[in-house]
Amino acid sequence: MTLSKVTLTESEMTLLRDCAHVMADAARAAILPLFRSGLTSDNKDATGFDPVTEADRAAEQAMRAILADLRPMDGILGEEFGEHDGTSGLQWVLDPIDGTRGFISGTPTWGVLVSVRDASGPLYGLIDQPYIGERFEGGFGHATMTGPLGARALGTKKTASLAEATILTTFPEVGIEDDAIGFQAVAERCKLTRYGMDCYGYALLAAGQVDLVVEAGLSAYDIQAPIAVIEASGGIVTDWRGGPAHEGGRALAAANEELHAQALAILSKH
Amino acid sequence: MTLSKVTLTESEMTLLRDCAHVMADAARAAILPLFRSGLTSDNKDATGFDPVTEADRAAEQAMRAILADLRPMDGILGEEFGEHDGTSGLQWVLDPIDGTRGFISGTPTWGVLVSVRDASGPLYGLIDQPYIGERFEGGFGHATMTGPLGARALGTKKTASLAEATILTTFPEVGIEDDAIGFQAVAERCKLTRYGMDCYGYALLAAGQVDLVVEAGLSAYDIQAPIAVIEASGGIVTDWRGGPAHEGGRALAAANEELHAQALAILSKH
Repeated sequence: MTLSKVTLTESEMTLLRDCAHVMADAARAAILPLFRSGLTSDNKDATGFDPVTEADRAAEQAMRAILADLRPMDGILGEEFGEHDGTSGLQWVLDPIDGTRGFISGTPTWGVLVSVRDASGPLYGLIDQPYIGERFEGGFGHATMTGPLGARALGTKKTASLAEATILTTFPEVGIEDDAIGFQAVAERCKLTRYGMDCYGYALLAAGQVDLVVEAGLSAYDIQAPIAVIEASGGIVTDWRGGPAHEGGRALAAANEELHAQALAILSKH
Repeated sequence: MTLSKVTLTESEMTLLRDCAHVMADAARAAILPLFRSGLTSDNKDATGFDPVTEADRAAEQAMRAILADLRPMDGILGEEFGEHDGTSGLQWVLDPIDGTRGFISGTPTWGVLVSVRDASGPLYGLIDQPYIGERFEGGFGHATMTGPLGARALGTKKTASLAEATILTTFPEVGIEDDAIGFQAVAERCKLTRYGMDCYGYALLAAGQVDLVVEAGLSAYDIQAPIAVIEASGGIVTDWRGGPAHEGGRALAAANEELHAQALAILSKH
């Protein structure tokens, strides 16, 4: 990985953003024919065909082909095909299907994650939900979504205390036991806990619908795009010690500084 | 409640089905402007305005107005406005927003539930997800869905054993402790457990995406439409003792008889 601190002009930001949208469009086209295609992972052993793996690979290949064409100087880190070194100091971080268990269950909570970073961390990211037709993006001065109800600005909630907060996670499904205990210690102070939203939970936080997302066991490609979207929308994402979360592991995403501080005070003990 | 066993002609079934769609369309129109409207239940105390309650009431009123116009002889049981006696022997069972906690969290897993029953139980039902624009219907010879990818036939999975099954529930959020223990006893035998899907879980079962939904603490209006959709799609819904589930309480929905028998053998001990 060859990252450096990169200074971008407005025009360069526009090109990067356009590229991300073209990539997400290509991922949608690759994935949607395989979503709810009736061939589930049950079929994997019998036929050797696993739709979620096929969709994952096809989408990442489609996105890498666009980068090879439009951005050959940039590095790539993708879930399916690993790292590709670049020379620009920038790296694209791709998760073609975040939430594969959601995907194979037919739920509309999985997403395509596309982001670009330099040595300082994520600069821009998008979370795309192809089935609903929703896209959330943040960075380079943008924090917006498009979906069934049109385009809207993103912005996190002002909720000031855990007692009024809604918390989301993929727990109790993900994480080792101590992670789950940390999560529960925060959740029991919150007003409402919801489960199972995959990366869609981060989009809901950026859109001002929920207050906290607490996760563990993440990879860099799971969290970089959400960080960009949430930070551009006014929220904060760190690990459970208050440090950067963009290399993966444990993440605490909060709508604002007050909530972040209250949740961090609990999670930092775990 | 005045229910009797009703014999319907094909034409009468068509009229009932058309009426259900008109009602669901009206509910969509009433609810969508309030979904993610930015005024959450946080605002309830300050302004007296609670968007989910407003949307719930407006949608049920819109559906009741259609029934008053098109089906004045039928009875109604609705979540928000209770029972209205009829003379036809039929009763409409309405839940304008099933999954209010999902609604206030911005998730696309809540739904509008519309069904019609006679003394024998649910005859026809639909599950509508207005934000995604998806509608699942079952009964009167139909088991179909429409959504972002067009129209498709519904049909449950053939999964033969719990070890290959995906199970959904709203647990650990819903149910008393003994309910959660019963659920966990089934879930630990299954391949994959997913949480938090509200009524959308029943739609996924009818659409052949998941194998089991196990819930507790239900009201009649939570489960009647799902029963009609799932049974028309080839699945089975009973309570945890194998009896009818359409009055609410505990429900076991399964993709087929084999899975139902395996799950019931466990749940019947709880």
